[in-house]
Amino acid sequence: MKVLAILYRGAKAATAEPRLLGTVENQLGLRSWLSSLGHELVVSDDKEGPNSDFQKHIADAEVLITTPFHPGYLTADLMEKAKNLKICITAGVGSDHIDLNAAVKKNVEVLEVSGSNVTSVAEHVVMSILLLVRNFVPAHEMIERGDWQVSDIARNAFDLENKVIGTIGAGRIGYRVLQRLVPFDPKELLYYDYAPLPDAVAKSVNVRRVEDLKEFVSQCDVVTVNCPLHEGTHGLVNAELLSHFKKGSWLVNTARGAICDKDAVAQALKSGHLNGYAGDVWNVQPAPKDHIWRSMKNALGGGNGMVPHYSGTTLDAQARYAQGTRSILENYLTGKPQDPQNIIVGQGKYESKAYGQR
Amino acid sequence: MKVLAILYRGAKAATAEPRLLGTVENQLGLRSWLSSLGHELVVSDDKEGPNSDFQKHIADAEVLITTPFHPGYLTADLMEKAKNLKICITAGVGSDHIDLNAAVKKNVEVLEVSGSNVTSVAEHVVMSILLLVRNFVPAHEMIERGDWQVSDIARNAFDLENKVIGTIGAGRIGYRVLQRLVPFDPKELLYYDYAPLPDAVAKSVNVRRVEDLKEFVSQCDVVTVNCPLHEGTHGLVNAELLSHFKKGSWLVNTARGAICDKDAVAQALKSGHLNGYAGDVWNVQPAPKDHIWRSMKNALGGGNGMVPHYSGTTLDAQARYAQGTRSILENYLTGKPQDPQNIIVGQGKYESKAYGQR
Repeated sequence: MKVLAILYRGAKAATAEPRLLGTVENQLGLRSWLSSLGHELVVSDDKEGPNSDFQKHIADAEVLITTPFHPGYLTADLMEKAKNLKICITAGVGSDHIDLNAAVKKNVEVLEVSGSNVTSVAEHVVMSILLLVRNFVPAHEMIERGDWQVSDIARNAFDLENKVIGTIGAGRIGYRVLQRLVPFDPKELLYYDYAPLPDAVAKSVNVRRVEDLKEFVSQCDVVTVNCPLHEGTHGLVNAELLSHFKKGSWLVNTARGAICDKDAVAQALKSGHLNGYAGDVWNVQPAPKDHIWRSMKNALGGGNGMVPHYSGTTLDAQARYAQGTRSILENYLTGKPQDPQNIIVGQGKYESKAYGQR
Repeated sequence: MKVLAILYRGAKAATAEPRLLGTVENQLGLRSWLSSLGHELVVSDDKEGPNSDFQKHIADAEVLITTPFHPGYLTADLMEKAKNLKICITAGVGSDHIDLNAAVKKNVEVLEVSGSNVTSVAEHVVMSILLLVRNFVPAHEMIERGDWQVSDIARNAFDLENKVIGTIGAGRIGYRVLQRLVPFDPKELLYYDYAPLPDAVAKSVNVRRVEDLKEFVSQCDVVTVNCPLHEGTHGLVNAELLSHFKKGSWLVNTARGAICDKDAVAQALKSGHLNGYAGDVWNVQPAPKDHIWRSMKNALGGGNGMVPHYSGTTLDAQARYAQGTRSILENYLTGKPQDPQNIIVGQGKYESKAYGQR
């Protein structure tokens, strides 16, 4: 059996830090175990173009392991070429880089390690909200360049207390974000989701559902995106929706870059309609050097909290998703049932409603 | 009556943003009210040296208003020269820039606006903890310079979940920090304070007291300093105490810069004993251009989350402390009793235990 894993390169960091399990070098800790069972493991970060390791080895791999951080994009075309492929495992959460309709059609299972990094991402969301609202980045840059002008920072620094904060998506990540926001004494917590939360769950974080998306964003000082990317959410936050945001509001997206329209966000930031945008996801990854989200700023020269896609790949998360990937592989090899919450596409059908299947 | 206010300069920002109340330009919103009562208000940011506005006008001012952000240092010597001085009002929280023993001796009252920015500072603490533990600054700088190497960030990024977090000082700010940390599911919350919290209060945030400071820091993954600066806390976090910190721990100080030994902190960061240091307070303010806390880094080139002193002067906080300052002045002018929690030094004696008076 050939197992193909597309991971990000760790280089020197991976040698120095063995807990960087999710790298090409450390191979999710699977090498010796798979070898001992007589299976072949091919690991690479080379994923673009017909001559890439990804496209060469997908032709006869039975198992494909990918991550959201350095996604191997398994298109319908590539799926056609993957004659032996039986199962795709996402080491992490978010399998939108796999053409799920094609997987259903070709009877390829798609699984992810559902719980592995939801807390990591939720923490990143709360951090990002705080650093935008409190104007951290321009303050730190002022210190680095040797200046000191408190008023230039304070003029755009606010408290999170008494703000209205809303999440698009109140699933595993969105709910954890809400939990962490409660003691900050927001004015109100809101959510937008296709399905209402059970009453007891909503009550536990004192959150109110708003059914209309435009109405929802128009009430929020802070909007955070915590829904999967699929046909129904691609470009959801576009120029039209942004025009319904409160002037001077903040937007945090650690879900998927393509949920927000790249240029519309940059334009809203420039015009002052948005006061800040932060997150770790990009419409293409790695992001090109000239991606506008790298350099966009608000009118006061701040409001950008972008980072590379790493919120779900902290060392703590890597330990969890390496373990989870092995566990899914073990189930596959021994014919044991998979944990239902990890199954995105089962035997020829969607098992999760998260990717837009209502 | 002459009222002297030493505030930070707002420059263009103060004209553009009238909510920047705590600036020389916007004068805490006191000008027209004090004028209508026939009082003189002198406002300046010029505070150093014998020819400064501060030292000239302190000679005959009856009321002195200062802030912690751009502190007018009222030494015992200057107190001697302040023949008319009756009351010092700190617009904000933290009156360590006033020689309190001299104030007691000279029968000068010292008041602050106690509740005005405790939430603002607590939010800044939680933000700083998150951004150190999650390795935000190097990640953002990577994006700004056009790079993308997830492993270089992930190798020093962790989750806050399951860490031991301790606060030195569990007063108004420290307690609010603990409240906000609870839903992050820390392994344990600890505090060190001269006085134990009431049982019900400690239980409400599930925090355990450690009475010995060395033992306390040796158990913490994250230490946050939330105590006032006084003789007993000056240089408290020095090389000796730092040697008892866990290797690779993080330190956040938004209390006062002088509580931590500047060079010992920089050295511990460089050696890798500390993984990060963040905060907004400096042993002298404004911090000199070559202050080592501006440029210090850990071995991996990160771990610095410093900003100028602004956590307690968000626009939300400025509205509160401007209002609180006016309220203290009104009480003073009309002979009404002051709110007890605002009184640091009353009529010739300390009223607060917060500044080391046990």
